[in-house]
Amino acid sequence: MLEKNHSEAIWHRINRKTKPLGSLGKLEHIGHKLALIQSQGKSDPVTNIEIKKPTVLVFAGDHGIAADGVSVAPQEVTQQMVYNFLAGGAAINCFCRANQVEIKVIDAGILKPIESDSKQLIVQRLGESTENFAHKPAMTHEQVETGLEYGEKIVKATIDGGSNLLMFGEMGIGNTSSAAAILAALSRRSVEKCVGLGTGINEQQLRKKRQLVQLGVNRCRGQNAQEILRQVGGFEIVQMVGAFLASAKYNTPVIVDGFIATSAAYIATKIDPSCREYMIFAHQSHESGHKFMLQELAATPLFDLSLRLGEGTGAVLAVALIRSSVEFYNNMASFEDAGVDM
Amino acid sequence: MLEKNHSEAIWHRINRKTKPLGSLGKLEHIGHKLALIQSQGKSDPVTNIEIKKPTVLVFAGDHGIAADGVSVAPQEVTQQMVYNFLAGGAAINCFCRANQVEIKVIDAGILKPIESDSKQLIVQRLGESTENFAHKPAMTHEQVETGLEYGEKIVKATIDGGSNLLMFGEMGIGNTSSAAAILAALSRRSVEKCVGLGTGINEQQLRKKRQLVQLGVNRCRGQNAQEILRQVGGFEIVQMVGAFLASAKYNTPVIVDGFIATSAAYIATKIDPSCREYMIFAHQSHESGHKFMLQELAATPLFDLSLRLGEGTGAVLAVALIRSSVEFYNNMASFEDAGVDM
Repeated sequence: MLEKNHSEAIWHRINRKTKPLGSLGKLEHIGHKLALIQSQGKSDPVTNIEIKKPTVLVFAGDHGIAADGVSVAPQEVTQQMVYNFLAGGAAINCFCRANQVEIKVIDAGILKPIESDSKQLIVQRLGESTENFAHKPAMTHEQVETGLEYGEKIVKATIDGGSNLLMFGEMGIGNTSSAAAILAALSRRSVEKCVGLGTGINEQQLRKKRQLVQLGVNRCRGQNAQEILRQVGGFEIVQMVGAFLASAKYNTPVIVDGFIATSAAYIATKIDPSCREYMIFAHQSHESGHKFMLQELAATPLFDLSLRLGEGTGAVLAVALIRSSVEFYNNMASFEDAGVDM
Repeated sequence: MLEKNHSEAIWHRINRKTKPLGSLGKLEHIGHKLALIQSQGKSDPVTNIEIKKPTVLVFAGDHGIAADGVSVAPQEVTQQMVYNFLAGGAAINCFCRANQVEIKVIDAGILKPIESDSKQLIVQRLGESTENFAHKPAMTHEQVETGLEYGEKIVKATIDGGSNLLMFGEMGIGNTSSAAAILAALSRRSVEKCVGLGTGINEQQLRKKRQLVQLGVNRCRGQNAQEILRQVGGFEIVQMVGAFLASAKYNTPVIVDGFIATSAAYIATKIDPSCREYMIFAHQSHESGHKFMLQELAATPLFDLSLRLGEGTGAVLAVALIRSSVEFYNNMASFEDAGVDM
C-alpha cells in the first residue's frame, strides 16, 4: 500500500500555486499521485517529480476463440501487426514518436514466432495460441503462473533500464472476447452488456460472439480472479496482469489503456487491491463494455477520443498530460512567489 | 469557406492505414481537418501535414463589473497574473514548456499598464478597463472596431513569424460574467443556466452575479452578435473575436480553450460562419455554462479534465493530440505497405 503520510503536505503545495483552488482538475490529482509515489519512504515529500523514459510494453498473443470467427480479421493479423510494430509503421509507433515514449514489443504467445533481431522485441511465449475458451480453459495453471512471472520480469527489466512511468498495450485477434468474458465473470454483469463490436463485426457476428463468450463465462462466473483469468483470459492478458502487479511492487505509476488493458488491470486489483493506487486511467474506449469496467474500478478516465484501437495508443496519448502535471507541480509559482493576492 | 474538393482523397488515405476503420476516433477528424486546411488551393492533397511553432496568445483585460464583486479575486489580480505570465510562473507557462508551445501575452486593456521590456509582451490597450456592463455598454463602437483589428493584427504577425497552429487564452477578473452574458444574450438561454461559479464564489455572490448579468442581457438580447459583444463583452474577448476571424482569413487552424475563449469563438461564428471550420475544441470546462456554449457550436471537445483556469491552459494541453494526429497521418503504414490482411 502507498503510504499517505506526505499526502497533506503535497496537497498544501498544490493549493498554494497561482490558480483558483482545484482549478487544474484531474491534473492536480495526477501531480499528487506522482509526488506521493516518488516520496515513498522519504522523510519529506519530493521537491520535484521526475519522469524518466516513459515506456509502453505492447504484449501480443493469439486466441483459440478467433478460429470461431469472433473478429473481422483473420488470426494471422496478430503476427502481421507485430512485424508492423517492429517496423515502426503502426499507430502506437506514431504516437510514441509524437510523444517521446519508448516501446518494447513482447511476443507473449502468437501463432507463429517472429523472425527478427530487433532490440525492441522480447520473446516470452506461453505457447502458440490459447485454447478456445468457449470450449475449454484458455490456459493451464502453469501457463498462468509463468505468464504472471513473465509480466513481472519485463517490468523489472524496464525499470532497471531507467524507466519510471509505464504503459501496457496489446495486440491479439479475438481479445475483446476475452476481456468481455473477464468483465462478465468477475462483475456478474450480463454477457450482452459486456460484449461489444470489437474491431467492427456485424449484428450476426455479434450474436455468435455473445453465445461463445457466454459458454466461457458459464464455466467460471463466481470463481476467483486468477481462475477466471485462466478460464477465459489470454497470453497477453496474463502477462499484463503480472505487469500491473509488478508496477505496484516496484513503486512505479502506470497509465492504463483501453478495454483489454483495463481487463488485466481489473484482475490485478482483485489479486492485490493495492495496485489500484498506481494506476492512471487514460481514456474511455469506444468499446461498449469499457465503461462498466471503469465503474468497477471506480476510475474516471482523462479523455474520450472514441478510440478503439488498442496497442496502448490511448495510454501513450496521456503522457503529455502527465508531463504537464509534473511541470506545474515542480515549477508553477506560489501566491507568495508571484505576489498575487488571490 | 474551406474548399472540400480533397476531402474524399484525404479520408481514403486515412482509411487505408493499418487499423480498424474509424478506430482512431476524433484523431482521424483532426488529421482530416488539418490536411484539408493545408491542401487549400493545391491541385493534390498534401502528402505530409506540417505543424510549425504552435503559439498561444494570452489576451488580458479588465472588467468594470469586477467592482461589483462578481469574483473572489480583486481586480488587481489581472495585472499581477500578467507579471506572472511574463516571469514564466503561471500554469499556462508550465503547460507551454511541457508541450513545446510558444506564448505571447497581450495587454488588451488592463487597469494599469505593465512595466516590462519582455519580448513576449504585446501592448494593444483599448482602455484601462471596460465600463460596468450591468449599468451601461461595456465598450464603445470604436473600441469594438479597434479590438477586432488588434486581434487580426497579432494573428497576422504570429503567422508571419512562422506559426501555423494557434491557441487563444485569456486573463481578466470578472470575465466569466461577460462570457455568461454573451451566452445568455446570443442563445436566449436563461441567465440562471449561463452563470456559474467562476473562480469559486459562494451562493450569495452567485445570486448577485446573476442579477448583474441579467441587467446587461436585458439591454441586448436579440440584437446582433457584434452589438452583444459591445454591450457585455470585454477588451480581451473582442480581440479574441478578431483573432478567430483572422485565423479563418489566413487559413490557420486554432484550438479553442474554455468558457471565455469559447464565448469569443461563438461570436466569431455569428459574424462569419466559415471560421467554425478552423476550430478544434480542446476541452469541456468545469464552468457550468460551457456545455451549452459547445452545444450552440455543435462542438464535441477532446477531453474533460475538470479544468476551470482559463489562460489557454486547456488548448495547450491538446497540442500533443494534434502532433499525434499529424504523425499518424504522415507516417502510419497502409495495409499495402505493411502486408496486413485486415
